[in-house]
Amino acid sequence: MRAFPGSPGTLTSLFLRIVQCVFAAGSIASMATTTSFFNFTAFCYLIASMGLQVVWSFALALLDGIALVKKKVLHNPILVSLFVVGDWVTATLSLAAASSSAGIAVLYFNDLGNCKFGEECQKYQLLLVFFHIPRNR
Amino acid sequence: MRAFPGSPGTLTSLFLRIVQCVFAAGSIASMATTTSFFNFTAFCYLIASMGLQVVWSFALALLDGIALVKKKVLHNPILVSLFVVGDWVTATLSLAAASSSAGIAVLYFNDLGNCKFGEECQKYQLLLVFFHIPRNR
Repeated sequence: MRAFPGSPGTLTSLFLRIVQCVFAAGSIASMATTTSFFNFTAFCYLIASMGLQVVWSFALALLDGIALVKKKVLHNPILVSLFVVGDWVTATLSLAAASSSAGIAVLYFNDLGNCKFGEECQKYQLLLVFFHIPRNR
Repeated sequence: MRAFPGSPGTLTSLFLRIVQCVFAAGSIASMATTTSFFNFTAFCYLIASMGLQVVWSFALALLDGIALVKKKVLHNPILVSLFVVGDWVTATLSLAAASSSAGIAVLYFNDLGNCKFGEECQKYQLLLVFFHIPRNR
């Protein structure tokens, strides 16, 4: 098998894995620093899914790094099919999590009036959540 | 190329395409018969995405039917790669639409109090939407 840029064990692959890991960690960080993410199942799911993505990307970045340092070739068919299945699973989970979170974000910031990304809107959002839980019981 | 069950131009493929088309149409029907889907961007997106899925599945079911009747083999590499790309695009769009709709459904029926699937809940849902649009302006 030819080692084209981006295949496992190349410098491009290592770089892309690190970028993937950093973006997933950024997603978790930006979500975890909000005050009310735990009220939304979709946001909790996003954190769980991005957590899996961070672990997966970090493990593969490590593997790429080791392969680069030790000059090993990672083109074992079993290993590559493992990478493909793992990437497919994490990609599907990430897409689902991002879509469900985006659906809720669009609902709040677009559908429910012309809410701007400000102090007032966050208060409104909090209110909406905390206000409606006791009302419905 | 060997014609294994499910590859384009087989009876299994025709059956699966018809099932795909019917389920997508069912999704549109169940969404379009609700009274307030147009207030939710995610639900409108679901309808658009499922509309594309219906058209795509119907076209491919038709193609499979023609290939079966005329006993043609659809294993042209260009045609197969077209199917793969089209299926990939519709699958991604459908997953994103289903996830965003599910995110909103979970938000309403699970996160915002113990809402049951009844008359009262639908009213509550309607109220929530219609009540908050004028309040925020």
